[in-house]
Amino acid sequence: MFDKLLHPDSVAVIGASADRSKIGSAVLENMRLQGFSGRILPVNPSCKEISGLPCYPSIEDIEGDIDIAVIALPAKAALKALEQCVNKAVNFVIIIAGGFSELGEEGKLLEKRIGEIIHGTGTRVIGPNTVGVIFPQSRVNTALTPAERISFPSAGDIAFISQSGALGLLVMDSISEHGTGISGFVNIGNRADITEEDLIEMFMEDSSTKSIVMYLESISDGEKFFTSIRRANRRKPLVVLKTGRTGAASRAASFHTGAMASDDRVLDGILKQAGVTRAYNEVELLDFGKALAYSILPRGNRVAVLTTAGGVGVVTTDLLASPDNGPPLSMAEFSERETAEMRKHVLPIASVANPIDLTADGSVEAFSSIMEILVESSNVDAIMAYALPQTPKIDLSIVEPLKRAAAGKTTVVGVIGHRMAKGLLSGLERAGVPAYPSTGRAVSSLRALCSYGEYLRRHGHEQ
Amino acid sequence: MFDKLLHPDSVAVIGASADRSKIGSAVLENMRLQGFSGRILPVNPSCKEISGLPCYPSIEDIEGDIDIAVIALPAKAALKALEQCVNKAVNFVIIIAGGFSELGEEGKLLEKRIGEIIHGTGTRVIGPNTVGVIFPQSRVNTALTPAERISFPSAGDIAFISQSGALGLLVMDSISEHGTGISGFVNIGNRADITEEDLIEMFMEDSSTKSIVMYLESISDGEKFFTSIRRANRRKPLVVLKTGRTGAASRAASFHTGAMASDDRVLDGILKQAGVTRAYNEVELLDFGKALAYSILPRGNRVAVLTTAGGVGVVTTDLLASPDNGPPLSMAEFSERETAEMRKHVLPIASVANPIDLTADGSVEAFSSIMEILVESSNVDAIMAYALPQTPKIDLSIVEPLKRAAAGKTTVVGVIGHRMAKGLLSGLERAGVPAYPSTGRAVSSLRALCSYGEYLRRHGHEQ
Repeated sequence: MFDKLLHPDSVAVIGASADRSKIGSAVLENMRLQGFSGRILPVNPSCKEISGLPCYPSIEDIEGDIDIAVIALPAKAALKALEQCVNKAVNFVIIIAGGFSELGEEGKLLEKRIGEIIHGTGTRVIGPNTVGVIFPQSRVNTALTPAERISFPSAGDIAFISQSGALGLLVMDSISEHGTGISGFVNIGNRADITEEDLIEMFMEDSSTKSIVMYLESISDGEKFFTSIRRANRRKPLVVLKTGRTGAASRAASFHTGAMASDDRVLDGILKQAGVTRAYNEVELLDFGKALAYSILPRGNRVAVLTTAGGVGVVTTDLLASPDNGPPLSMAEFSERETAEMRKHVLPIASVANPIDLTADGSVEAFSSIMEILVESSNVDAIMAYALPQTPKIDLSIVEPLKRAAAGKTTVVGVIGHRMAKGLLSGLERAGVPAYPSTGRAVSSLRALCSYGEYLRRHGHEQ
Repeated sequence: MFDKLLHPDSVAVIGASADRSKIGSAVLENMRLQGFSGRILPVNPSCKEISGLPCYPSIEDIEGDIDIAVIALPAKAALKALEQCVNKAVNFVIIIAGGFSELGEEGKLLEKRIGEIIHGTGTRVIGPNTVGVIFPQSRVNTALTPAERISFPSAGDIAFISQSGALGLLVMDSISEHGTGISGFVNIGNRADITEEDLIEMFMEDSSTKSIVMYLESISDGEKFFTSIRRANRRKPLVVLKTGRTGAASRAASFHTGAMASDDRVLDGILKQAGVTRAYNEVELLDFGKALAYSILPRGNRVAVLTTAGGVGVVTTDLLASPDNGPPLSMAEFSERETAEMRKHVLPIASVANPIDLTADGSVEAFSSIMEILVESSNVDAIMAYALPQTPKIDLSIVEPLKRAAAGKTTVVGVIGHRMAKGLLSGLERAGVPAYPSTGRAVSSLRALCSYGEYLRRHGHEQ
């Protein structure tokens, strides 16, 4: 049903413009820059061509099928254009304009018109009040922010559904730093038609999606939502950042997207029951989504910590074992044989108790050998490894052994620092190993993996 | 007393080496690269010169006073060198070698020797088991990690005392990314002589230090520590990351620095009573230290949130108002006059309730005008401002108005994203405005400011 959204052959931009300050220009340019190989069709009655593309006076003047039409016009004009899209039997229409239900009664009436216009037709609407969609694999990008201001992520495994457009774009800009990719981004906006449940369904069926992360300010239908996430989360892990936890924030959300807040305790219960991972800020949202997309799941919560910097191991142990942020994880206990085996690879001053501290003398070779022992160990469910290129014998070649370890057992990597560390983060990203730039983020992400693994085990799902 | 440590005229490196793989080489090179203007004196009986510097067979062969001697020799040889340093009346000796109390009984005896050797003399010792000190203002850097692997921070306001050397160096590498500077770094290691209390005293008297952050795995003397931090924290804010909160971590710490853990509840009580900010990971440690060093203190906890991306305002409101991470802050309520005043600078669709959402149309000018109103407002104690250069009318010129606002009222800035965002973070750093790359880090840092402000108010200290 959503195939033509994920993989369109043609995208029209109604209100396309040559004026770089206009949204209709940014959308067209982003489609072009992304290298979309299908037809890009600018629509604007007062232009003959834009950026070398022939321009159409109206969508109805275009020959052939249109899979996606982006409407970059103000609210009232957008409704007229939507009617034309319906006449033209466009599959998916993205309405960018705000000025609908988020602005009170008059806007609500306008928004109701959207439902009426498409009722009984094959046309589906994303928005209004949306920046649209990004599908890197199909090279579709309808974002309204010009590419010189923002980095867009490459093709990857994480699907991102966001009620807020700006927050979504900011987060995607952030994750681009080390090359984290997405399978798709959809800003549902005021969701006059297509809802989060539709998109969960879409990404559940999409083979390139390995995890689904959602930013929501409100739930349109609690029961439908619960059914949807419970079903989806057993097949693909979901992460939800739902705001309005506090009264102050739900009032703010109602100004922002016109959303009516629900009781957060109810929502929290629903998420817990469905085993859905909850994030509390935008960084956790993508951190958890990445861990769940990249990593195999742990079969328990016994963690081995491996580092070349003792203090980092100690801080990590506290974060793992503390009950302050959810159920504590256990520090794995190694057998005598394993300990003796590890001893062979380290200096006498190194500690092979858990956390394992190779000290600054720890080399990529020693690190690899120890990880092999940990992957084989029946006493270890997950490895928390610090790849710290500031110590003299660790460098980018540590990516390969980390990748091998991650293929055999849940492995989350922490990297702390600046220049060399950034290179290593990017290298680990390319290798598909979940890596994070701090102890806190690494441990929280590992916790998310353990919780989800436990949820699936408890419900008898094979991993 | 510590003047010659902070501002030495001469630094000797005992065990200096031309072999780049040796610690004695890294220390010497870091001193040279840092551009130390005093005398750098390599000591090594088997060299005539190293890197163009004349090399001395023994420290006793050097003419003139020596303020700091770094001993880059193994444990037993280090003790011999220390005896020579005492003979030469060196002011401060840094013993890099491990192999002391952290390695059990034999090591403890060796470490006891250090105290015996310097007893009754004017020589003071940092370490053993330390990477030494960094004082950017005096261009002193005895770190054992070569500069090609790590970025060292520039001169700044934050003093950093760390029991772990590697963790300290990693964190300094991290903060260098956007140019956060330090007034000094001291790795106390096994603190056979100089303790955290000595250094708190030193940095309290140091005019360039505005906040003191500490990583500790153990406290050498609880009562002394409490007296020291309580006194210091009333003059300069302290932040403490103390590990060993959990049993697992205290066992790990005892392997790492030979530290004996204390009961964490006792420690937590001590910190609370002294009004000292507690951090739970290495990122918080420096985040809080930065906020406390850069910002004026709020006189209450009524926060105004200002953004050009609605969702970011909503997430922030939840984080501010939630009781999950300490006492919640209040959302400031604006007067009718203030609201009307703000209305003049924004589009009708913008929200001037709190959080204030200028929408993507928000310009640097509008942002500045609103901030002026917030700075003047008697209803607002602190401003949480998001500088988001992805929206079309925000750019680097927002740094100046943010700097003006921060001079008038507590202002913490959030910046989310990659390329343009990084430039803005660096610009804000140069302007001395505390800025953070996520909602979570920005809000936690603002909370640290509010708590410290409240502590001082409660104890009748003028701010």
